[in-house]
Amino acid sequence: MFWTVSVIGGDMRQLTVAKALKDEGFKVSLYGFDEEIEHNGISRETDIDYALAADIVVLPIPITYDGCNINMPYCDFPLSTEEFLDAINPSALVFGGQFKPDFAAALEDMGVKYCDLLRREELAIKNAVPTAEGAIKIAIEETPITLHGSRCLVAGYGRIGKILASMLAGLGANVYVEARKYADLAMIEGHGYVPLPLSDLRERIGDFDIIFNTVPHLIFDREILSLTASGALIIDLASKPGGVDFMGAGELGVKVIWALSLPGKIAPVTSGMIIKDTIMNILKELEV
Amino acid sequence: MFWTVSVIGGDMRQLTVAKALKDEGFKVSLYGFDEEIEHNGISRETDIDYALAADIVVLPIPITYDGCNINMPYCDFPLSTEEFLDAINPSALVFGGQFKPDFAAALEDMGVKYCDLLRREELAIKNAVPTAEGAIKIAIEETPITLHGSRCLVAGYGRIGKILASMLAGLGANVYVEARKYADLAMIEGHGYVPLPLSDLRERIGDFDIIFNTVPHLIFDREILSLTASGALIIDLASKPGGVDFMGAGELGVKVIWALSLPGKIAPVTSGMIIKDTIMNILKELEV
Amino acid sequence: MFWTVSVIGGDMRQLTVAKALKDEGFKVSLYGFDEEIEHNGISRETDIDYALAADIVVLPIPITYDGCNINMPYCDFPLSTEEFLDAINPSALVFGGQFKPDFAAALEDMGVKYCDLLRREELAIKNAVPTAEGAIKIAIEETPITLHGSRCLVAGYGRIGKILASMLAGLGANVYVEARKYADLAMIEGHGYVPLPLSDLRERIGDFDIIFNTVPHLIFDREILSLTASGALIIDLASKPGGVDFMGAGELGVKVIWALSLPGKIAPVTSGMIIKDTIMNILKELEV
Amino acid sequence: MFWTVSVIGGDMRQLTVAKALKDEGFKVSLYGFDEEIEHNGISRETDIDYALAADIVVLPIPITYDGCNINMPYCDFPLSTEEFLDAINPSALVFGGQFKPDFAAALEDMGVKYCDLLRREELAIKNAVPTAEGAIKIAIEETPITLHGSRCLVAGYGRIGKILASMLAGLGANVYVEARKYADLAMIEGHGYVPLPLSDLRERIGDFDIIFNTVPHLIFDREILSLTASGALIIDLASKPGGVDFMGAGELGVKVIWALSLPGKIAPVTSGMIIKDTIMNILKELEV
Repeated sequence: MFWTVSVIGGDMRQLTVAKALKDEGFKVSLYGFDEEIEHNGISRETDIDYALAADIVVLPIPITYDGCNINMPYCDFPLSTEEFLDAINPSALVFGGQFKPDFAAALEDMGVKYCDLLRREELAIKNAVPTAEGAIKIAIEETPITLHGSRCLVAGYGRIGKILASMLAGLGANVYVEARKYADLAMIEGHGYVPLPLSDLRERIGDFDIIFNTVPHLIFDREILSLTASGALIIDLASKPGGVDFMGAGELGVKVIWALSLPGKIAPVTSGMIIKDTIMNILKELEV
Repeated sequence: MFWTVSVIGGDMRQLTVAKALKDEGFKVSLYGFDEEIEHNGISRETDIDYALAADIVVLPIPITYDGCNINMPYCDFPLSTEEFLDAINPSALVFGGQFKPDFAAALEDMGVKYCDLLRREELAIKNAVPTAEGAIKIAIEETPITLHGSRCLVAGYGRIGKILASMLAGLGANVYVEARKYADLAMIEGHGYVPLPLSDLRERIGDFDIIFNTVPHLIFDREILSLTASGALIIDLASKPGGVDFMGAGELGVKVIWALSLPGKIAPVTSGMIIKDTIMNILKELEV
Repeated sequence: MFWTVSVIGGDMRQLTVAKALKDEGFKVSLYGFDEEIEHNGISRETDIDYALAADIVVLPIPITYDGCNINMPYCDFPLSTEEFLDAINPSALVFGGQFKPDFAAALEDMGVKYCDLLRREELAIKNAVPTAEGAIKIAIEETPITLHGSRCLVAGYGRIGKILASMLAGLGANVYVEARKYADLAMIEGHGYVPLPLSDLRERIGDFDIIFNTVPHLIFDREILSLTASGALIIDLASKPGGVDFMGAGELGVKVIWALSLPGKIAPVTSGMIIKDTIMNILKELEV
Repeated sequence: MFWTVSVIGGDMRQLTVAKALKDEGFKVSLYGFDEEIEHNGISRETDIDYALAADIVVLPIPITYDGCNINMPYCDFPLSTEEFLDAINPSALVFGGQFKPDFAAALEDMGVKYCDLLRREELAIKNAVPTAEGAIKIAIEETPITLHGSRCLVAGYGRIGKILASMLAGLGANVYVEARKYADLAMIEGHGYVPLPLSDLRERIGDFDIIFNTVPHLIFDREILSLTASGALIIDLASKPGGVDFMGAGELGVKVIWALSLPGKIAPVTSGMIIKDTIMNILKELEV
């Protein structure tokens, strides 16, 4: 492959993406990292027109926080999404995380192909590993007890719930997993955890030392919170609205930690490799 | 609950079902077990009209092998499906495994409600546990090596694949799991097994000491079989057509064991409890 | 190495020993297997004088059952220990399992060096793996329940107890381990099992579905046996006197299986490799 | 039991010890914690003569850092070991960690019975759990990769090595354990880790992402350190001299974290319970 790749902005994960794509044989350059940042031996591009002339452009995850500028925490000069759209090569293939509707529409109008990495199931699953490790680190840090021998509740048995339950059991915790469907409860039992139907949550919530929420709906409302054990810790891993009534928790004195974006914080190199692997899978599917 | 339950025929699992439903508070009788069979203290009914006057009727899994008579291996006198249909109480609720189309149609014509236990996801998942244990027993028995330290391939990452992979890893085997989808491969890796894309099967098949198939399509065709290691054992757990070219295996001298219906054979009490739990779930859903 | 090795008698494990020593570069011949036995490509020696002229002689485990003839189940002609002593090369190094005092004394008188494989700690530890797998196979076979979810007691936390507890936990059993010392109980808890002090055995024995004994003292006396749950299975893995009052068990109707010599039965190839590895370790230590 | 207990100084673990002994039925008071420290409802004693009149006196772990004053970080006023010896009730039973020879001799001269908690095997084993969790937290924090999928070396297979290897495997790491004895190497393999003989360390050291040392001898000398992979992290858990040439590591740019006294830092409540359990075991043995 003699394709050119331009990796634009983002956090430390992007440096790994750039390095790993170079190792796969692409010609890679970086844009949006100041000079003093270690570049892993990747050439630095400072002219946005050159940068966006590449065959493949890798935007950060997420592409933008403010909806206006590309997410570039390691660069002093901003790059607006408009500047990006003005300079992008129309035949480029653009990767990134969370394409906002108007940004996506603008790309489509120009005929630019793009692919939202956050829509890829395998990326979400692989990110469950660093997320679970980050949650475990927080639990070790923020409680005066060991996870080993503690009673842990994992609310939700999706991607993160599955990996987290497995790791907690591996550390010797007593693992309970909350779910709704009989099929999920059966699989939870089959993996050796204690299944807890949602309908029993109210009655059993007082038993747990540490509660990990992975469900992005409000399960931990004021009433449930008021029934938790004194000293219990809640770690909320659910995105967007979260699953905990934070205000209620504050008033009740229940300790809650809302832990977001753990993969990039806890394991930027592993997370960068996950992004790279996902890009490679997509390229294979597209047969480019 | 003051409901009456009649448990009809089937194997040893039905005795557990009868006993467990009695423990739940139902009035239970058994039909289709000869006198010398231990009845767990359940009263034996010999008059089919009385038996089928119950509120709930539990037929075996499967209901019939020959399409003509109810599956009653522990009874000398047969009961035909026709006799059953003649005597069934029209307001009864009938459980069983695998309702054949004409049998189901006849019940529907009479307005009899029925529920196929084999269509319940939680029963299928819970049965994965005895199935996996049975497969492990066979693997220990039929190979001159220990599972610990052996290289095992699990083909398919559905219900049985998930539980079996977890148990094999728990015994210290080197576990590889074959799957097709990137998402499954990511979850396989997340659980600590080696993911093997179907596309790599051909190249890697010669590495394995024991191969467990759980996929009900023909994956192990003559070509793949010809590439297995000398002395390798294949245990096929897939239902209906199976996933192995048995004739080809025979000609090539590859040892294959087709292990069907393991739950009832390996763990009739656990399997009976699974049936009972599933019936209780259904009754709860129906709010009867 | 251009040393000659003669592998004498024993069961299927010896064929693996012979093959594996050949793969290590020795010149190996077999004695004591009839012609129709598959020889793994090893040359068969029929003249005992030639056989015993080798530099290294590998006797079986155990060397003899009756104290009189070498243990040679796959050979029609016997070889007495006296014949062996008459023919042995005085400069040979002799391996085997369980040298009886008079046999050992005779070798010493002749200045023949010998090494009892059963005295090697690493062989005993490695044999714990096939022993544990054999015990698991028996437990799956002989109970109508799954190990997963069952309550298992492992009595003793030595070599077999450690490996067996780990495997049972890996299958999803609820694992209790009996021990006496506080230090062992602490390590049991540290590995995630429930520690059961010997002093609590009497009170808790009725809780278990399956009991694995690994302690070669009489722990399971008539009184303890009388307190086991109805339907409980005891698998005794302890050598020599065993740890169960078998007669008492018979009278009380408690099901006990005394499972001895599992490694050779359950996994002759793995067990043969363990013997070979141990021989190689000894040779390395002797710097021969 | 109507015995009086005085818990003297130390860190947060001592508050748990005091509370837990009270829950066991003793009459407990605390000395050496300033007023503003939360006392768990234990009465605070400020007069040392009253404090040391108790039947049982629990000194901290360690008793003293400077050899002169009792270790009392949460108290503004010091208590010297001399003042302690002047005031101690001669019929008291004194617990604590690490009795210095002259302090022990003084107690013996007075006929005061004492017991060094750090000499108790079960305390050391149970402390391996919080130590291992602390090491895992550090590893997650200080590396840009996930433990899952990483290559970890545990040097030493004693108490901490055993628990740490088990937890790392539970998180999905590839676990290698270094040991010297064939018996340990066999047990390491039996538990599913890769055994690494000390003699192979030099050759393999470059393979590891994270190295956990538990051996209190200098294994990681300048030569071995010079062979580690770039970016590798060493976490030294060994007490006293440690097992790493720290100066050499600094000069070579190898990242080493010397993590001591993790139990009290990472899990003061669990560690306090461990101390309490050990005291209870000793009292049971003394039949007091």
